[in-house]
Amino acid sequence: MYKLLKTDGKAKRGEFVTRHGIVQTPVFMNVATCGAIKGGISALDLKKINTQIILGNTYHLHLREKDKLIFELGGLNKFMNWDGVTLTDSGGFQVFSLSKTRKIKEEGVYFNSIIDGKKIFMGPEESMIIQSNLDSTIAMAFDECTPFPCEKSYMEKSVARTVRWLMRSKNKMDELNRERNKKQLLFGINQGGVFEDIRIKNAKEISEMDLDGYAIGGETYENLYEIVDAVTDYLPKDKPTYLMGVGKTRDILECVARGIDFFDCVLPARNGRHARVYTNFGELNLNNAKYFNQDFAIDKNCECETCRNFSRAYIHHLFKAKEILAMRLCVLHNLYFFNNFMREIRDAIEKGNFFEYKKNKLNDLERKN
Amino acid sequence: MYKLLKTDGKAKRGEFVTRHGIVQTPVFMNVATCGAIKGGISALDLKKINTQIILGNTYHLHLREKDKLIFELGGLNKFMNWDGVTLTDSGGFQVFSLSKTRKIKEEGVYFNSIIDGKKIFMGPEESMIIQSNLDSTIAMAFDECTPFPCEKSYMEKSVARTVRWLMRSKNKMDELNRERNKKQLLFGINQGGVFEDIRIKNAKEISEMDLDGYAIGGETYENLYEIVDAVTDYLPKDKPTYLMGVGKTRDILECVARGIDFFDCVLPARNGRHARVYTNFGELNLNNAKYFNQDFAIDKNCECETCRNFSRAYIHHLFKAKEILAMRLCVLHNLYFFNNFMREIRDAIEKGNFFEYKKNKLNDLERKN
Repeated sequence: MYKLLKTDGKAKRGEFVTRHGIVQTPVFMNVATCGAIKGGISALDLKKINTQIILGNTYHLHLREKDKLIFELGGLNKFMNWDGVTLTDSGGFQVFSLSKTRKIKEEGVYFNSIIDGKKIFMGPEESMIIQSNLDSTIAMAFDECTPFPCEKSYMEKSVARTVRWLMRSKNKMDELNRERNKKQLLFGINQGGVFEDIRIKNAKEISEMDLDGYAIGGETYENLYEIVDAVTDYLPKDKPTYLMGVGKTRDILECVARGIDFFDCVLPARNGRHARVYTNFGELNLNNAKYFNQDFAIDKNCECETCRNFSRAYIHHLFKAKEILAMRLCVLHNLYFFNNFMREIRDAIEKGNFFEYKKNKLNDLERKN
Repeated sequence: MYKLLKTDGKAKRGEFVTRHGIVQTPVFMNVATCGAIKGGISALDLKKINTQIILGNTYHLHLREKDKLIFELGGLNKFMNWDGVTLTDSGGFQVFSLSKTRKIKEEGVYFNSIIDGKKIFMGPEESMIIQSNLDSTIAMAFDECTPFPCEKSYMEKSVARTVRWLMRSKNKMDELNRERNKKQLLFGINQGGVFEDIRIKNAKEISEMDLDGYAIGGETYENLYEIVDAVTDYLPKDKPTYLMGVGKTRDILECVARGIDFFDCVLPARNGRHARVYTNFGELNLNNAKYFNQDFAIDKNCECETCRNFSRAYIHHLFKAKEILAMRLCVLHNLYFFNNFMREIRDAIEKGNFFEYKKNKLNDLERKN
């Protein structure tokens, strides 16, 4: 299903064939937390800017048993009128980051709903059922997201349990696929925090399980590049790799260079909602007073709907007037920018000049405005 | 500039030719308070649904001296990338409704800014300068919006002053048009509250001033239909009439029947932002729990972007998840609905069956859901 088309150093240019379409990698996934990109962006908007794949949050879509409704209505894609590829996370990250009271046991995690405090249990089987209900193209295995910092002894125990959860995730997903006559894909997740030896041992272990793809999760800025560099060496070359939650432009470039196919992050949308827009000459904050009378586009060379139609002065004004159109215009621009950025990366790998491109691009992206 | 194409009883089917395009009347104007329809709607969205004319708020666009910037940048249309017809109100209504401390003098009104409490003075000349800066197609004369209830003796004095202000508005607009080599149109406003005799006397007076159009302002629900019926008899038939701030579907139908060409109201957008949508079988509140699993459009027969692409269940979910896309989708639907509603009204007048249409439409629109 994954075809490695070209490499440039460790950078991979791949093609991932799924039942919802082909994903050209490297690719960036925008986060549709509750079935929409925050900032007033619909699936129609995403199609217009050639978005290939989006990410839905299992935890948020499980609250109020929404996943059961979505199952009845034919899955998340149909629910939000999206006909591209969808990846759902396992819900684990939100369970660990949003719930203050939680108990981790061998069977899974007990925690309280952020909505009504109701007790919820989620283990690998529950996560697979929810993701099967959502009918995403790609499901993620249920894992523990360890805190940072974390004792090495705890990390070893946690990773061992996450491997057992991965086995259970795989078994449950196989069962659900048979029962429901579906072909939902499953990615495993490499954990181990900052400990390279745990990460590598884990990568070797999960690589043998012949999953549809492999993610790197729970990474920190402590040693992000080193960990990615080390782990990708032990993941199968004929499967896509996915670095979870990473979305700064520099990190994307550095981690494409280290063999990553998939990225996701809320940053392009969140930044857009706060007037921060990406350009090939650095980031701008349109709330800044200096933009109040700039009667030209965010980026004159950008072909997005926002740049073709609206001036910096107008968008600055909309933010000051608290008009939500301001958010929509900036998020649209940022999503377009990221889709375009990833296309450039793919082109550069194909042409074999990714590292030159990367150097120049970093210079451009990090200019001060 | 205004051509009366057809009448059906007192209902007028007109055509108003302006430098920014032809307005087919009766028409409904959506309110772009700060240069955007609230709910994340851009000028591009308005064009897609064949919007003819929008209304901008002079008071809001004058705050922080925004009108001077907009003048420098080429006017409100260019600022918001709108190429249709624009009407600006005089600012008077907001001065009287939003400012708690105000002093009305012969020269104009002294009040405090809602933003920083700064003292502002606005009289007819100031209002015309601001509206000329905004370069709207149609400017409104500066008037006093009297409180309700209001003593008859005060009303008489107020209306007399508003007529003097209208003269000053006209003189200033003529001067600005000469100076700036422009052809901004000016509508006068009939006032007089609930007092039919004051209204009629005033209508006769202002009709002689050969303005580009005539509005009815400061009306109340006390005797709305009676006032409109009485006043339109004394306004010129060869000029457009505009009933300010009216936007309930029943009131539009009843006042078209009494000779009104233009309407404006924030209701379609405000209702949409609160999940209330219009249909030909009554209004729905999509926040209502019963919509949670309705896997079909707001109105299966509606051709708007929202109805062609998204289900009630999805929009209900978006409101519960506090996604602003929910507001955008409902506002888009409502604006489309109103454009379509006014088109139906125009067709009915042309066909000479407006009163039959009106009766049936009222039945449809007021069904309970």
